[in-house]
Amino acid sequence: MLSAQTDYPPLFAEALARTQVQVDGAMERGFLVPTPVDMAGGYTHEVHKQNWKTLSGAGAIYRLTGDTTYAAIVRDGLLAYAEVYRDWPTHPTARSYATGKVFWQCLNDANWLVYVSEAYADVYDWLEPSVRSRINAELFRPMADFLSLENPQFFNRIHNHSTWGNAAVGMIGLVMDDEELVQRALYGIPATELPEDLRDDDSGKIMSETGRAGFLAQLDLSFSPDGYFTEGPYYLRYALSPFLLFGRMLADKRPELNNLAYRDSILGKAIDALLLQADPLGDFYPLNDSQKGMSLYAPEVVKTVDYGYYLYGQDPTLLSLAIEQGSVTLDAAGLAVATAVAAGKAQPFRPGSVAFTDGPDGQEGGVGILRAYGDGEERTGLVMKYSAQGMGHGHFDKLSYSLYDGTGEVIQDYGAARWVNIDQKGGGRYLPENQTWAKQTVAHNTLVVDRTSHYQGDIRIAENFHPDLYAWDGDGDSLQLVSAVATDAYPGRRLHRSQWLLTDSLFDHPLLIDLFRVTGDTAGVYELPTWYQGQLLAADFDYTTIDTLTAMGADHGYQHLLTEARGYPEAGTATVQWFGRGRFYTQTMITQPGDELLFVRPGANDPNFNLRRDPGFLLRREGPASTTFLAVLEAHGSYDPRVEVAERPFGSISGLHLIQDDSDYTALRFTHRDGAQWTLLLSNHDASPESIHELILDDTTYRWEGVHHLIKTNDASE
Amino acid sequence: MLSAQTDYPPLFAEALARTQVQVDGAMERGFLVPTPVDMAGGYTHEVHKQNWKTLSGAGAIYRLTGDTTYAAIVRDGLLAYAEVYRDWPTHPTARSYATGKVFWQCLNDANWLVYVSEAYADVYDWLEPSVRSRINAELFRPMADFLSLENPQFFNRIHNHSTWGNAAVGMIGLVMDDEELVQRALYGIPATELPEDLRDDDSGKIMSETGRAGFLAQLDLSFSPDGYFTEGPYYLRYALSPFLLFGRMLADKRPELNNLAYRDSILGKAIDALLLQADPLGDFYPLNDSQKGMSLYAPEVVKTVDYGYYLYGQDPTLLSLAIEQGSVTLDAAGLAVATAVAAGKAQPFRPGSVAFTDGPDGQEGGVGILRAYGDGEERTGLVMKYSAQGMGHGHFDKLSYSLYDGTGEVIQDYGAARWVNIDQKGGGRYLPENQTWAKQTVAHNTLVVDRTSHYQGDIRIAENFHPDLYAWDGDGDSLQLVSAVATDAYPGRRLHRSQWLLTDSLFDHPLLIDLFRVTGDTAGVYELPTWYQGQLLAADFDYTTIDTLTAMGADHGYQHLLTEARGYPEAGTATVQWFGRGRFYTQTMITQPGDELLFVRPGANDPNFNLRRDPGFLLRREGPASTTFLAVLEAHGSYDPRVEVAERPFGSISGLHLIQDDSDYTALRFTHRDGAQWTLLLSNHDASPESIHELILDDTTYRWEGVHHLIKTNDASE
Ligand SMILES: [Ca+2]
Ligand SMILES: [Ca+2]
Ligand SMILES: [Ca+2]
Ligand SMILES: [Mg+2]
Ligand SMILES: [Mg+2]
Ligand SMILES: [Mg+2]
Ligand SMILES: [Mg+2]
Repeated sequence: MLSAQTDYPPLFAEALARTQVQVDGAMERGFLVPTPVDMAGGYTHEVHKQNWKTLSGAGAIYRLTGDTTYAAIVRDGLLAYAEVYRDWPTHPTARSYATGKVFWQCLNDANWLVYVSEAYADVYDWLEPSVRSRINAELFRPMADFLSLENPQFFNRIHNHSTWGNAAVGMIGLVMDDEELVQRALYGIPATELPEDLRDDDSGKIMSETGRAGFLAQLDLSFSPDGYFTEGPYYLRYALSPFLLFGRMLADKRPELNNLAYRDSILGKAIDALLLQADPLGDFYPLNDSQKGMSLYAPEVVKTVDYGYYLYGQDPTLLSLAIEQGSVTLDAAGLAVATAVAAGKAQPFRPGSVAFTDGPDGQEGGVGILRAYGDGEERTGLVMKYSAQGMGHGHFDKLSYSLYDGTGEVIQDYGAARWVNIDQKGGGRYLPENQTWAKQTVAHNTLVVDRTSHYQGDIRIAENFHPDLYAWDGDGDSLQLVSAVATDAYPGRRLHRSQWLLTDSLFDHPLLIDLFRVTGDTAGVYELPTWYQGQLLAADFDYTTIDTLTAMGADHGYQHLLTEARGYPEAGTATVQWFGRGRFYTQTMITQPGDELLFVRPGANDPNFNLRRDPGFLLRREGPASTTFLAVLEAHGSYDPRVEVAERPFGSISGLHLIQDDSDYTALRFTHRDGAQWTLLLSNHDASPESIHELILDDTTYRWEGVHHLIKTNDASE
Repeated sequence: MLSAQTDYPPLFAEALARTQVQVDGAMERGFLVPTPVDMAGGYTHEVHKQNWKTLSGAGAIYRLTGDTTYAAIVRDGLLAYAEVYRDWPTHPTARSYATGKVFWQCLNDANWLVYVSEAYADVYDWLEPSVRSRINAELFRPMADFLSLENPQFFNRIHNHSTWGNAAVGMIGLVMDDEELVQRALYGIPATELPEDLRDDDSGKIMSETGRAGFLAQLDLSFSPDGYFTEGPYYLRYALSPFLLFGRMLADKRPELNNLAYRDSILGKAIDALLLQADPLGDFYPLNDSQKGMSLYAPEVVKTVDYGYYLYGQDPTLLSLAIEQGSVTLDAAGLAVATAVAAGKAQPFRPGSVAFTDGPDGQEGGVGILRAYGDGEERTGLVMKYSAQGMGHGHFDKLSYSLYDGTGEVIQDYGAARWVNIDQKGGGRYLPENQTWAKQTVAHNTLVVDRTSHYQGDIRIAENFHPDLYAWDGDGDSLQLVSAVATDAYPGRRLHRSQWLLTDSLFDHPLLIDLFRVTGDTAGVYELPTWYQGQLLAADFDYTTIDTLTAMGADHGYQHLLTEARGYPEAGTATVQWFGRGRFYTQTMITQPGDELLFVRPGANDPNFNLRRDPGFLLRREGPASTTFLAVLEAHGSYDPRVEVAERPFGSISGLHLIQDDSDYTALRFTHRDGAQWTLLLSNHDASPESIHELILDDTTYRWEGVHHLIKTNDASE
């Protein structure tokens, strides 16, 4: 037991005690500094990774308790590295565009240096000057130069790898008070000091078009003005660490730079952007190349919450995230959080609707998240993606959406085809199916035309374009709207999707109303997937299952799809019903003569069983140059196998109609089986909140202000 | 707030308060007694079902608080039924072999009468004698006669339906002190009073071969001497209710019958048998026709736990089940449980290994459950099924097994193809695929020969036979064994399966060692399925996925199976690795030249998407008349997507050999990659614990006592 421990609030004291257990355990096993030879997962990789944790833990314990045993652990560990570091060649694997020395890639060396810099800061004043000098000269300055001057292709890009490099060099520079390193970290290596026309492994120029590099350039260019990160929350979580760690140290040691307020407090916005991109279970939306299951409650996100609280306004709702995380950072931020938690200041984390812009100037589309709260504060969340391509980790899924409720995923985004760090699956790297399936349009809940992915699935085309937000009503009341347009995904076709969350006491949970208009000049074959989570219960149209299953196509993801059944709905509406996690779902879709419903599942051309065999269905329509899809999704009732009573297993919507649909207006109407009727009007040409619209339907004249308008009639319950 | 409420311990007070909320809510909505017209799920069905809950809740509240408002609710409700009951015809649906009056089947009428009898008992003394007389004469005696004399095909069988009928008639008889009804309930309707040769809907004779009927006959004939119920725990849970409810009332009102001690306390054994047939998450093993997810923690099982505690020995480990259930019965049993819980007497529920016998005399095979406890008291459970057929709800799965650990199902039993009470799935009834898939041998983890189910999948054959236990070592120590033989599943072939759970500190979790010997006179094609839960990671042999998927066969379940890949292991061993719920699994199997591994999944000929698409693999061997399968399954390591570190993703076993295998002995050996080696010896001809065996292997003579013997060598860690 640490003597000081009992003075700290519980969350902090427990985090400190856990750290001590880890450090003591590691020291008992022995602190080894083996010559690097292994890839990730291998022995030397894991030892050096453990070492950075041991050193940073020991530094924190010394700082918080004054127990010099732990300062000595840091000193001795660093001396052991100093003894050998300069003699190590670059890592023998030579598998990276920027091979490290301690690890197979500079990125991991930079991770090491970031965390070890913190440990060094903790003991710096305690060390004998001669020891400091030796460590500075024989370990840290060489390592910082290696990660920057010797690897400009790693250090000088606008890229999250470079952010790690900048942070590592900057943090050790701050600790050693080495202004040259600090300046290099902040502003990059001047182009004049680099070979001309330096290019990376993909032949891309190292220097960005702006001519800028370094930490401040990353702050300017990595995020949209809202803090959104174009690769999505999974990568934002990873990219944010060096920003936060270097940013906090800079704030301490160079307060005059005022980096926390830089770019209208962009770091605070990035923190918020991360925390707002998670479903009700805390899982980050698996946009683009995301492994599913990464979470608000991951250890890595502890500092995001704590720094968000401490550095940006003490929002008491963040404290409930900290409670769920069950840990805090071992610094002033974590102490502030733990103290506030102990004082009972936590309030429920209740994120609202939010539209993030994408692109450094916020001009490249974005992501709209509508959230509605129901009984027991259950949250339903709709995520519509109209962002830019997201660079190499982007998916071809313009105007795609996913839906979440208190049970988790309802309509899923597939995420990435990758098992991070699991050796049996391609060494943990992206699997071939990430390209051939996960990135393709049909793997998403958005329209595929002519079985070809958006932008032909070609990133070189895709990165020149982005959809745009058309209209947004995220005010949190009973009707909310996100609407966006993509004009470039298919040349000559305009895709316009509008999605509403409607909360009404006649329905158990918020309804999703989905309107997808495509206008073009030439005929097309349209397939609109719904990747539902659960077991198919029933459809209200005839379908026939297929006895011989083969791949649906040869490319654009269709080479992985099996058609399990083919349905022939009559013109009018079609419903598909499924059972999720204890809850029923019914999707009602308007259909036209000749429409088909294809029940599909990935599984073809999957030679290593890399794909999840999750079900979906495609509403297929052949022919028209322009057409509109309209669907309403209800979540209703419940079923618990412990009780075996099916509550409200059937949906309530008895009619769904597109009353008018042209370039000026769309009017849609649906009816509850008890008689209530909703008419929803949308202007397709003017999204201004101030414009006055007028539309005559069935001899009734509707006038309203703003882009959309809802009329409810015949409610017997009122 | 009830005045008396605060005097009760919390679990009891809360259960009482919840009941009051339910009764008050129901009375606010109004107590209606509509003329019955609907099937289950329909309006009148649900109203009458709610009424029994309202009446029994109100009776309990009156009994516990003395608040006569609630006694009046019971009185007025019963009078409302008495007013109309005799005028109701039998239910208009006429869909049952025993159509009810209140509900579509007598079974539900009997459910109603059981629970309402309790309510009536609660208020009996408070009622005016004239009111009692009226209710007795106009409601209960007619109802009791209807359920017995007028429906002997419902009342007089040895069947769980009849148990409900017996309990209903007996309980109301006890309340009204109507000895004629009590005698009828205890002993059935005398055969002399029934039409000769009365037959049920399946043309079975109503009277059992024993000539007995009634509650005591059910106690004698429904369970094995261990309390095992041949249809499995899912049905035991259901069947147990009338036994417990009538049994407890009998104990109160006719203590001289001493029914709780009847047949060596068979009711207490049945309670134990139910509570011991659940996995570490509390889910009952889905043997035979079971819907998955039914649980120790289902509301229905509250009385099983409470009566088990109160009537049979106050086992303090049952209290922790009660805590997890979060409720108690509103009677002396529940009060005893709640009081003991409040006094802190609860101890962990830690079931051990147990072998249940099947058949009324315990002579018809059984079910063996091995349990081993590891780190953090994590439980691994192996269930081997060598029971009798289990009547109409039985599956053709002799010597099948399933495996569970702290994460839930590891090797699954498919359960039933049925969605109880979910209208969209065949009205909630058994689906066609229950017969064509779920009951068939290949749907289970046991051997299929010549793609034909055991007993040709014919219950008329199957019910004449059963496997037998060969050897049992369930002593809870580091090596446990269950071994059974089936000689009749395939004529001319003897199937002998032996499974061990081995706990050793060199492995993260207990190993499953699975030895399956088949001996016969003619060549055969053998397929041994492993229905694992999770995502396939890798195999150590070449396999090719299949581009065109079609049904594997035409019948015996194979019409539902798709072969997704075909593997060609070399002779020696083959491993298959998968990822479950946060944990890795590696199965190592010995293989012979020509063996194939077929990776399969149900999905063919499933016209209504009734089947789950869970993966499995079949080890396929063609040719020999006799052959042996041997496999070892390791559970190891972990992976959490929030942390993305794969701990010990690879298994540790580097060699597996069958050293000797004949009708006298099997000797098998496996090796840990760090060098330790285990040699496991089994006598195939003498399972006596006292016999001395001697076997010479590689010049070493092994001598041991009892059926099996384990030798561990070369353990570097010792
Ligand atoms: Ca590049
Ligand atoms: Ca609104
Ligand atoms: Ca043993
Ligand atoms: Mg995606
Ligand atoms: Mg509004
Ligand atoms: Mg089964
Ligand atoms: Mg022993």
